[in-house]
Amino acid sequence: MPLFEVQVIIENKPGMNDPEGETILNDLVLKGSYSEVKKIRSAKMLKFHISSKTKDTAEKTTKKLCDELRIYNPMVSKVTFSAKPI
Amino acid sequence: MPLFEVQVIIENKPGMNDPEGETILNDLVLKGSYSEVKKIRSAKMLKFHISSKTKDTAEKTTKKLCDELRIYNPMVSKVTFSAKPI
Repeated sequence: MPLFEVQVIIENKPGMNDPEGETILNDLVLKGSYSEVKKIRSAKMLKFHISSKTKDTAEKTTKKLCDELRIYNPMVSKVTFSAKPI
Repeated sequence: MPLFEVQVIIENKPGMNDPEGETILNDLVLKGSYSEVKKIRSAKMLKFHISSKTKDTAEKTTKKLCDELRIYNPMVSKVTFSAKPI
């Protein structure tokens, strides 16, 4: 079966604060006078190597796995899955 | 000036151990009997919103910024930058 890399990006939901990104922006980037930077959001990424029939099933299996094993908290996090063949 | 989102992915260099990914794989995913998963690597992501003339300059400015401000440790980390217009 072909092998896929599925990138799982776990970030705070859009309406929620992101203290880590805000701190990097305000206390590091803007003090370094990079005023063209408008916003920074932090996120966690996991890369799964998974054997699956298609790109689509690779994404679906990874989503099911992450939901079942509570890899992220659906109350506070937004998660995106994107697979590519390797 | 147009606004770009630059995704900065910070991960351990390929040859280095990744205890976090290994633990998720061995103690969570494989115990949950998802044997189609072959490997998991963890990474950190930062999303920069930056105003820049082109996609290319957005990536270059973000790279320069991350290098100068030591956002990552070049000895142990591999970093990739990818910009898209927003």
